[in-house]
Amino acid sequence: MSDINQDLLKERLRCTFDRKELTILIDGGPDKHRDRKEKDAVMLHSKFEGVPEDYLSYVEKFENSIKESVEMFSRVRRLQEQGKTTMNNYREVMANILRSTVVRDGSPMGLHYFMFLPAIINQGTEEQQAQWLDRAWNCNIIGSYAQTELGHGTFIRGLETTATYDADTKEFVLHSPTLSSYKWWPGGLGHVANYCILVAQLYTKGKCHGVHLFIVQIRDEDTHEPLPGIKVGEIGPKLGFNSVNNGFVGFNNVRIPRNQMLMRNSQVLEDGTYVKSKNDKLNYGPMIFVRSVIFGDSVNFLSKAVTIAVRYSAVRRQCPRKSGEPEVQILDYLTQQHKLFISIATCHAMRITANKLWDIFNVVTKELHDGTYKRLSELHALACCLKAVGTSDAASLVERCRLACGGHGYMRSSNLPNICQQISAACTYEGDNTVLLLQTARFLIKTWQQIDSGKLTPTVDYLNTARSKSHPGKWVNSIENIVRAFEIVSMRKISSCVENMENKVASGVTFEDTWNMCSVQLISAAEAHCRVILLSSFYEDIHASSKTVSPELRVVLNQLLDLYTVYWALEKLSDLLQYTSITSEDVQRLQAWYEDTLVALRPNAVGLVDAFDLDDMVLGSTLGSYDGKVYERLMEDALKSPLNSGKINYTFYKYLKPFMEGKL
Amino acid sequence: MSDINQDLLKERLRCTFDRKELTILIDGGPDKHRDRKEKDAVMLHSKFEGVPEDYLSYVEKFENSIKESVEMFSRVRRLQEQGKTTMNNYREVMANILRSTVVRDGSPMGLHYFMFLPAIINQGTEEQQAQWLDRAWNCNIIGSYAQTELGHGTFIRGLETTATYDADTKEFVLHSPTLSSYKWWPGGLGHVANYCILVAQLYTKGKCHGVHLFIVQIRDEDTHEPLPGIKVGEIGPKLGFNSVNNGFVGFNNVRIPRNQMLMRNSQVLEDGTYVKSKNDKLNYGPMIFVRSVIFGDSVNFLSKAVTIAVRYSAVRRQCPRKSGEPEVQILDYLTQQHKLFISIATCHAMRITANKLWDIFNVVTKELHDGTYKRLSELHALACCLKAVGTSDAASLVERCRLACGGHGYMRSSNLPNICQQISAACTYEGDNTVLLLQTARFLIKTWQQIDSGKLTPTVDYLNTARSKSHPGKWVNSIENIVRAFEIVSMRKISSCVENMENKVASGVTFEDTWNMCSVQLISAAEAHCRVILLSSFYEDIHASSKTVSPELRVVLNQLLDLYTVYWALEKLSDLLQYTSITSEDVQRLQAWYEDTLVALRPNAVGLVDAFDLDDMVLGSTLGSYDGKVYERLMEDALKSPLNSGKINYTFYKYLKPFMEGKL
Repeated sequence: MSDINQDLLKERLRCTFDRKELTILIDGGPDKHRDRKEKDAVMLHSKFEGVPEDYLSYVEKFENSIKESVEMFSRVRRLQEQGKTTMNNYREVMANILRSTVVRDGSPMGLHYFMFLPAIINQGTEEQQAQWLDRAWNCNIIGSYAQTELGHGTFIRGLETTATYDADTKEFVLHSPTLSSYKWWPGGLGHVANYCILVAQLYTKGKCHGVHLFIVQIRDEDTHEPLPGIKVGEIGPKLGFNSVNNGFVGFNNVRIPRNQMLMRNSQVLEDGTYVKSKNDKLNYGPMIFVRSVIFGDSVNFLSKAVTIAVRYSAVRRQCPRKSGEPEVQILDYLTQQHKLFISIATCHAMRITANKLWDIFNVVTKELHDGTYKRLSELHALACCLKAVGTSDAASLVERCRLACGGHGYMRSSNLPNICQQISAACTYEGDNTVLLLQTARFLIKTWQQIDSGKLTPTVDYLNTARSKSHPGKWVNSIENIVRAFEIVSMRKISSCVENMENKVASGVTFEDTWNMCSVQLISAAEAHCRVILLSSFYEDIHASSKTVSPELRVVLNQLLDLYTVYWALEKLSDLLQYTSITSEDVQRLQAWYEDTLVALRPNAVGLVDAFDLDDMVLGSTLGSYDGKVYERLMEDALKSPLNSGKINYTFYKYLKPFMEGKL
Repeated sequence: MSDINQDLLKERLRCTFDRKELTILIDGGPDKHRDRKEKDAVMLHSKFEGVPEDYLSYVEKFENSIKESVEMFSRVRRLQEQGKTTMNNYREVMANILRSTVVRDGSPMGLHYFMFLPAIINQGTEEQQAQWLDRAWNCNIIGSYAQTELGHGTFIRGLETTATYDADTKEFVLHSPTLSSYKWWPGGLGHVANYCILVAQLYTKGKCHGVHLFIVQIRDEDTHEPLPGIKVGEIGPKLGFNSVNNGFVGFNNVRIPRNQMLMRNSQVLEDGTYVKSKNDKLNYGPMIFVRSVIFGDSVNFLSKAVTIAVRYSAVRRQCPRKSGEPEVQILDYLTQQHKLFISIATCHAMRITANKLWDIFNVVTKELHDGTYKRLSELHALACCLKAVGTSDAASLVERCRLACGGHGYMRSSNLPNICQQISAACTYEGDNTVLLLQTARFLIKTWQQIDSGKLTPTVDYLNTARSKSHPGKWVNSIENIVRAFEIVSMRKISSCVENMENKVASGVTFEDTWNMCSVQLISAAEAHCRVILLSSFYEDIHASSKTVSPELRVVLNQLLDLYTVYWALEKLSDLLQYTSITSEDVQRLQAWYEDTLVALRPNAVGLVDAFDLDDMVLGSTLGSYDGKVYERLMEDALKSPLNSGKINYTFYKYLKPFMEGKL
């Protein structure tokens, strides 16, 4: 299977730009590109051979994931020993690798790296770090992060698990008072982790001080048996992530020493006195960080899906244009281009916006350490809406890619089902998308109330400019004008929400009820704001990079910008029709522009997904491999089914034959 | 667990209408209601006990599905023996039961009933029926239906499998000339069926006569071994339907007797002379039938999903409205109502439209048998767009229901993942939705060309009326006006496509290229037409039934009609803004109307899903059971995981512990 499908070969020959130039641009420059390739070389190719995972039982999948995770993290350890990974960059090293590539359906050790370690680093005192960090960093202990309960996810203040300080013994007593207070979901907690960070309501001297973090040992380090008073297990099968070993845990008056509360910010003194954190805003940091990671990660899912779908669409032929002619590559159908190319453009728009988000994150984090919080709520609102809109867009586009591959996209071996199942989880975890958009809306409403002061933080400053144009000017079909139009839409939606809310409150409705009554419109306003961020970030970046990239690449990047912008103008047309001066004739021209851009991108479609530079192992797809041997791989994979061994299954003799003979 | 969750109890007490009246209305009257209940009593409760299916390996799932299918069809056989099922109504009997209820992830014997038997009935001669029908009806043989190939789905004329007549031996020689010609997908073909209907290119006297159907034995009836020259197996894991045993088959010059071509319509005489069918349009019947079934079935998936999500939302509480108050049922959040109630309304709109489709189907089928074909293409176009829009709407709404259940909706035990996976397959099978919409578009374009003749078939007759109103009148926010507005939108989209196409053709573009260039807009026009059908069918039916239902139910049905109509007006607002005189103020009032209707429906939400009358066994959901014991069931189900047996898994000793000790 070493040769390449002829259609793919031709596609690559007709590509008009240098794919490597684009790959390096995506990676963030030659150094980062080299670094990624180097680490990929170590981390990939660690797959165990054997029956493909999709044939295994739930328990076998678990066992497989342990084998694979241990192998993978042993490689990470070797990188560490070579000094190539330090605590400063390990997240980066993991990010692309951990997420559904080597360990395809998730790793039970992910949370150890993504939440257990960071919690100790960020919230532990120096003594606590000295006590725990080395052992955790070297994986001598493996931790999880237990926050969500059976009965509580969104409303963290409502968590029921308690940690009550006993000044006599200088211990905290951990307790799960109800079934609904059982922790539920933490990755790896079921049968892998022997420690966890526990989020529980702190009680001391008879008073509740809200949720705090505790380091809790769950299992014996030697025997792996659950410690006394702890009921721990795994929560059962899910839509995806079935190798993550998500667990539950309940406590029956379990005691831990006082120094296992993470006390960098708040403390409980020996006598039980509670010392409040000087700055509880610092807790926002990790939450914002995780949501930013998730937003950036959406690109990984989407680029995989669209690479698979575009390559398959270049190989798959169906229907001759005219009777007697050869059948057409389905990539030549405008409807197929309409389904797929927006995903390519979205990968770039989201990647660029994610970079911008990280820039702001770094600025604000630095300010936080300097004691300045003025952009914290802006950053929080930004991460919320980008996580919500980004995962939601990616989830629907991944599904669109899958559907575009027809029946074969329904095969597990295409890997599209798995990608769908993983990205769709991202719409829920670490903040349900609806809840997050309402968080952003709350910030926008507050921002509006300050608009007359004239001083708005950078990402909402456009509201001032947009408001000053009370009558929108004549419509122009240009990218810049569309971006400005989205600013007006966002501004109008926010101001309309404010007006509706003021009217309701004035008529005697409570603020809480008003908020609920306006929530559908508030969500729409928050999304509109997020569209402005995505569109303007993409626009500004392409505009700026035009000076540095080659002319050939510049053309293609601008086509992607056009496609993305015009696509969203058409998607949100009802807003433009209501809030700008766009006419039906303009709309027709926009539609033509959109379709012309699809056709213009067509010759470079395969080149554009090749430039994502995703290894066949990362894609893990019969439909998407670099060589395009689609049908050969589909059959080869099917033949691995244990049912295809040639033996007649016992159910034939026991059930099927007697049934056919009328004996059952 | 016999008592009922208190919140659900309260919801049921506040319901303002008689749920049983609505259930009977949904079932189609008291007789059909009684009939369904009677058959449910026989068919349900046949589940095997043991480890839940989601923990099993692929092979174990297969074995389980054989056990369950044989049990289920033995019950069907008993119904037959009692005279309660005849060939005339067996499809009806199956429909609700077969599809993902008793056999949760699909049955490998489904195609035997849905396609193998009907093919013999519809396309076999009387002699062939005498030879095969009894044995098939009694399940002495089990058949599949093999059409789709690895390389061909949509373009049936491009199928590669050949059946070449050999006049010397009076046999057909079946052959698979390429890898891509292997049949791929037929349900049950892998290891269950011993016969299949094969769709192959007929060659006789050196000439190809296109695809025809053949009865082909695949496996020995006694040993179940594949017959010589036949390579058969199963295609491997899929997103869903993993119990269906979808198979592949290839033929190496396999011979079958002449009388195994189904010859009711076309024939091959002994000497090899081909006798063409007098009416090849008869072949459309089964295709239209299957698509109509799928459209009607979408309601089953959606009603299950929304029943689960609404009950869960009544039980789940999250966040107090004000600090100190009890937490709120999430069903009280407007955003949650916005996510869920449209699904309830859609179930009714689609059920009603499906009934209308069946009425037309019966009329046209009768006409066909009388030799009249004038409404055949109308019916075909109608079934195409309803299948496409119906499955696509249902798929996105089912996913919306799943997401509305947060993390717990991601649990397999909620059954929502399974429902998502099944309905999403329906967007592809039996005609990819994009291809089907283009079929409808083709009919609409042809219809437009006859519009001046003034005589259009009933379902497109509105185009004439809509065209006569060249300037839309003043906008009124009423259901009737919105329905009329959608007619105008459809008319304008079709006429705009025609105009664009004429311009392109006039400028020298071939018709085929023009079609492709306009295809995105053609799909949009076909969808707009389908919206007219759905909205007007719902409107007319509720209007008519108002005279017969109780006043209490009438109120609620009208609220559902309002909700559905206004929801779609807001969804398709850009069309209304472009093609009607609706103003921004009208839009604001529409939005308020929509939100007020959500609030009005809130007290009856649980009553409305209760009225779908879905047994807990049909729902198969920890979140959706009638008693609302959500958390108890989640935990109970998790404890069934074999990993939770208490034993430490061997991977701890072999991998995890050595890794933690730094020895790996």
